[in-house]
Amino acid sequence: MINLAVDCMGGDHGPRVTLAACRQFLNSHPDAHLLLVGKAEELAGFKHERVTVVPATEVVSMDDPVEIALRKKKDSSMRVAVQQVKNGAAQAAVSAGNTGALMAISRYLLKTLDGIDRPAIAFGLPNAKGSDTTMLDLGANVDCTAEHLLQFAVMGSALVSALKNTEAPSVGLLNIGEELIKGSEVIKRAGELLRAAGDAGNLNFYGNVEGNDTFKGVVDIVVCDGFVGNVALKTTEGVASMISGILKEEFKRNIFTKIAAIIAYPVLSALMKRVDHRRYNGAALLGLRGLVFKSHGSADAMAFEHALNRAYDAARNNLLDRVRSRIAAAAPLLLAAQTESGTSAP
Amino acid sequence: MINLAVDCMGGDHGPRVTLAACRQFLNSHPDAHLLLVGKAEELAGFKHERVTVVPATEVVSMDDPVEIALRKKKDSSMRVAVQQVKNGAAQAAVSAGNTGALMAISRYLLKTLDGIDRPAIAFGLPNAKGSDTTMLDLGANVDCTAEHLLQFAVMGSALVSALKNTEAPSVGLLNIGEELIKGSEVIKRAGELLRAAGDAGNLNFYGNVEGNDTFKGVVDIVVCDGFVGNVALKTTEGVASMISGILKEEFKRNIFTKIAAIIAYPVLSALMKRVDHRRYNGAALLGLRGLVFKSHGSADAMAFEHALNRAYDAARNNLLDRVRSRIAAAAPLLLAAQTESGTSAP
Repeated sequence: MINLAVDCMGGDHGPRVTLAACRQFLNSHPDAHLLLVGKAEELAGFKHERVTVVPATEVVSMDDPVEIALRKKKDSSMRVAVQQVKNGAAQAAVSAGNTGALMAISRYLLKTLDGIDRPAIAFGLPNAKGSDTTMLDLGANVDCTAEHLLQFAVMGSALVSALKNTEAPSVGLLNIGEELIKGSEVIKRAGELLRAAGDAGNLNFYGNVEGNDTFKGVVDIVVCDGFVGNVALKTTEGVASMISGILKEEFKRNIFTKIAAIIAYPVLSALMKRVDHRRYNGAALLGLRGLVFKSHGSADAMAFEHALNRAYDAARNNLLDRVRSRIAAAAPLLLAAQTESGTSAP
Repeated sequence: MINLAVDCMGGDHGPRVTLAACRQFLNSHPDAHLLLVGKAEELAGFKHERVTVVPATEVVSMDDPVEIALRKKKDSSMRVAVQQVKNGAAQAAVSAGNTGALMAISRYLLKTLDGIDRPAIAFGLPNAKGSDTTMLDLGANVDCTAEHLLQFAVMGSALVSALKNTEAPSVGLLNIGEELIKGSEVIKRAGELLRAAGDAGNLNFYGNVEGNDTFKGVVDIVVCDGFVGNVALKTTEGVASMISGILKEEFKRNIFTKIAAIIAYPVLSALMKRVDHRRYNGAALLGLRGLVFKSHGSADAMAFEHALNRAYDAARNNLLDRVRSRIAAAAPLLLAAQTESGTSAP
């Protein structure tokens, strides 16, 4: 039995979306049990034999500052959901709430794994091969050292190997050119560490990749600092939504283009399905002593269900143990890197 | 009369593309004169009353290291073209050659303007408003200080005001959130400097923008360091080419989708025209004592002509004077920023 704790109050839509997704998820996962966390009166109507309601009296809002979420709202649905993981009642928690608050609460309650300085956010972006490329960090860490980037690579490898059942997913270092001499000092040093980890058999290191390689599916995992990752993620959203906006505008231009839209509909919907961001919902917060998944705040029921699926797969495939054992295997290298650079955090 | 020096040998296609573009450009610009730089035998066939051939015996290849381009190939078409600007024979130079070499040669021959530590590469990306958003730096500087970002903002404002005839184009600082407290220390400090420049009337500073805002057209100019800018630019290319690849694939799937493609053709070609990267060709190398424009290496004649148009507009609208006078106006602020941070370059 896989137990997941669900923050039912998080996100832009709250229980209306999260409960619908939970019902769907339970139907397709007969060995799953859900702990629905939230206001008792809003969850009371949800009856299912594999569901337990865990009451929480407060809700972290999308614009609550991290301090408020962490220090004032101690009985928030988000915090109580993460607490279920800490207690061992659930193997993973899922929330569509405010990312900063979720990261802070998860870090505070669960703590980081040995050998990890900083948790990271990892997410799969669609690629031209019809699969997805996992990128991390996507915004948890704005300034990163080379050692952090190595830790991200190790954690990302564990995530992809758990979700896709591959032993040695390939890792690329996001850079501004393929050549070794490209990039900042931190990136060049990260390249050295990643190559050493590859040589030692801890990683399947491909080398440098550029911004467009993510979408070609050149590697399984792209590693970068949280500032660059966040810009790349939002750039992706921006370009995709500009193109879809132009397509809609052009198809609505006159009666002929409207007819063309009807005829081209199956093709356009196939396109939309392949790049539908809802299918890629569910970012992993990696590096913690427990599994936490973040859904997009604006997720609808289908998207939230994808985040639940991802958390379920991660729990079922022992993501936590995989991260732990990969970190342990890379420990001598991480330690050497930290000793060499004099510190583990800047 | 506007004189442009054209590196006819640069880019993936050389004279075949550059000469066709020059002919087209001369037809539409009756007050333009071109200095065609390259191998005499390859340019001899090109006759036009407003053209002068300037022979150069060497060519910088797309994969020449910067040192080779700069120190060994002293009679390269790229270098001789930039030299025409230095001599005063041309108001601007245009090349489709290797970016690193062009930046190094331009910097070496022309030097940077007073008040500018580092030149930057600026480029206009299409946005949903049907216009373009100018982004800089796109890869010339991997590590930037807050002062560099302020200089980029001032230079970018001069560029957009010259190319679009607007007095106070708006500037956004690329960040991972709109709030002032977001981002790295460098970004937060840059935000302070940009706000001070806005308050002093040197800039029209909008505030922080995120990766997707570039494509919404929220601001005229987006400022970032060259690493982030390069990743964002290549991410844009990657997403756009993935979507167009999927569209092609889906339209070719079977006989019905092929018919749909024919019927939808006018719409698809309108879309392609609006996001056609060829129309956005021509990046400006800013901060030098002379105008240099870089065309994409793979440019066809239409794209290269756009780069020529951009150089022409910049020369005609006195971009160099505009950059100089804006930098002079912002000089007290730049100086104060440099004194405060103890240094002008890291």
